[in-house]
Amino acid sequence: MDQLFQEITQQPAAATVLIQQEFSHIREIIQKIDKDFNYILIAARGSSDNAGRYAQYLFGCNNRFSVALTTPSLFTLYATPPMLKGALVLSISQSGMSPDIIKIVNNANSQGCTTICITNNVESPLSVESKFTIPIHAGEEKAVAATKSYTNSLITLAMLSAAFYGKSEFDDQILQIPEWLQSTITSTQENLAKIQRYRYIESCAVLARGLNYCTAFEIALKIKELTGINANPYSSADFRHGPIATVYKGFPVFAIAPHGQVFSDMRQMVQDLLQRKAEVISVSNDENVLQESNLGFQIPTAIPEPLSPIVSTIPGQFFGWQIAIERGLNPDKPEGLNKVTETF
Amino acid sequence: MDQLFQEITQQPAAATVLIQQEFSHIREIIQKIDKDFNYILIAARGSSDNAGRYAQYLFGCNNRFSVALTTPSLFTLYATPPMLKGALVLSISQSGMSPDIIKIVNNANSQGCTTICITNNVESPLSVESKFTIPIHAGEEKAVAATKSYTNSLITLAMLSAAFYGKSEFDDQILQIPEWLQSTITSTQENLAKIQRYRYIESCAVLARGLNYCTAFEIALKIKELTGINANPYSSADFRHGPIATVYKGFPVFAIAPHGQVFSDMRQMVQDLLQRKAEVISVSNDENVLQESNLGFQIPTAIPEPLSPIVSTIPGQFFGWQIAIERGLNPDKPEGLNKVTETF
Repeated sequence: MDQLFQEITQQPAAATVLIQQEFSHIREIIQKIDKDFNYILIAARGSSDNAGRYAQYLFGCNNRFSVALTTPSLFTLYATPPMLKGALVLSISQSGMSPDIIKIVNNANSQGCTTICITNNVESPLSVESKFTIPIHAGEEKAVAATKSYTNSLITLAMLSAAFYGKSEFDDQILQIPEWLQSTITSTQENLAKIQRYRYIESCAVLARGLNYCTAFEIALKIKELTGINANPYSSADFRHGPIATVYKGFPVFAIAPHGQVFSDMRQMVQDLLQRKAEVISVSNDENVLQESNLGFQIPTAIPEPLSPIVSTIPGQFFGWQIAIERGLNPDKPEGLNKVTETF
Repeated sequence: MDQLFQEITQQPAAATVLIQQEFSHIREIIQKIDKDFNYILIAARGSSDNAGRYAQYLFGCNNRFSVALTTPSLFTLYATPPMLKGALVLSISQSGMSPDIIKIVNNANSQGCTTICITNNVESPLSVESKFTIPIHAGEEKAVAATKSYTNSLITLAMLSAAFYGKSEFDDQILQIPEWLQSTITSTQENLAKIQRYRYIESCAVLARGLNYCTAFEIALKIKELTGINANPYSSADFRHGPIATVYKGFPVFAIAPHGQVFSDMRQMVQDLLQRKAEVISVSNDENVLQESNLGFQIPTAIPEPLSPIVSTIPGQFFGWQIAIERGLNPDKPEGLNKVTETF
């Protein structure tokens, strides 16, 4: 079997190791740092930047933190790094090798910021540069497309949020992540044959809102890099006010619709899409949404919305893998891509 | 002639009025406000959110300000507004009627932030709610797709940046914007017939980096809402590390490549795309890039990179208009869209 498929199925085990090894360590880091910051600035690229989108909403919901995403080219090409007074700088990089992210952390240190990195490589230059390092323990990721490293970055962010939050209910929910990952993998695998239906699509949209906005971006990215399909990610709110014009009869739209605060909005979006005769592929734990959809991927009923992004990308990972197989592409090494994002 | 075409061609006149009426007013506002903020938080949706992306880079390059974009659903659906200590809140809304943007400003006021709004309607609820209002003087915009209101929002941001910056060279450049807009409109109109070539495309990519990242988003949005084509916006840096897998022989890619700090990176991207036999549609003031492209749209040679986003969207506006005409769509009223973004 190819590496990508193996790495997708390794996610529950990788999550278990991460939670066991790092939950206390993260609490220790949070005790040590200066908590008098005004906002969190996230430095990341690609899938790690999508993890940053999760942090925007999770730290907002749980911790009331204001979270910004960096614009790396201000630090590199323009050489005009912004003033970072009041910022806690959190970097996310699987490889720890991206030169632009290292440069941002280096600059943030020179401005006196607390710098924390989330990485799969504790000996990387990014880790050396950062004041605090949180290893994600994903093990070596051989496939170019990130799967378990993305999921473990999200779990790390959830543990960081929990360490600031101090609510035992949320801590307990984090401990259940590995089993929720496993049940999502199992239920998705039962539907793999149905993905063949989408062998010939040229483009699609991926819709979510709020906490799962990151999921829309990450699923779209997996589909693009693994299959070449033009998958467009959107907030359902933005989609309604313009890009919905791209929906024609049979146009495939992913809808990420877990129970929670954004559910009624996403449920309405699914209804509107069905009325326009779009082809709806849902990721949900709502029986009605799953049944109304042309294809429904089940996520665990009990998972709370703030943790649902950790499992809701899985159907997108399998979707990209399955279409790559159907199209005779190599899922481990998409054409023209490199594992390390070397932007400068 | 339809409203959209008229409003596109009204942009130089609208810019002239705005600069005459507001440049001094903006300087007065900047003198009055508390300048002890740590970062600027931008609240906007749709095209106005794309204007916010311009602010991220322009305020970074000129003023070294750290700029964040809000996540409106934290204020609305989740009802967990972030702590805004240290934030200057800048809202952008053509109509001034978007309930979520009004709610963010209301909350920011209650947290003691300075709130400034940029709007086309000085009597709107957003204007009433904000401590300071900057009118964009675009005149009534009847077409649903934003054109002159987007351009005037960008010019307003440039004047805001200039007021903090205090460099007479940049001030003088702003005064030349109306003539640069006019010459871009004139040169684009000479190429309108060539746009027919793209009558049947289903999807395309729009690439830019840095200051023109906003242009990639705004051109993609215009094309999507006016034509239904799946136009995907990207940073060229992100595109290279994944989504470039979507490029096949003949795949249409817009490349925004003005002279400036990101030019050599964008030039290299154009070379790489041509090597992959992509169809390159460029917006540039570089002779070589324009000639190498399958279709090149000329922007003024003298325009400095920080102001180039103000003109570089124009070819995208005309492109969306022309394809809508070719497809028999109504350019003034794209199917299923409303002028006011009423998200909650």
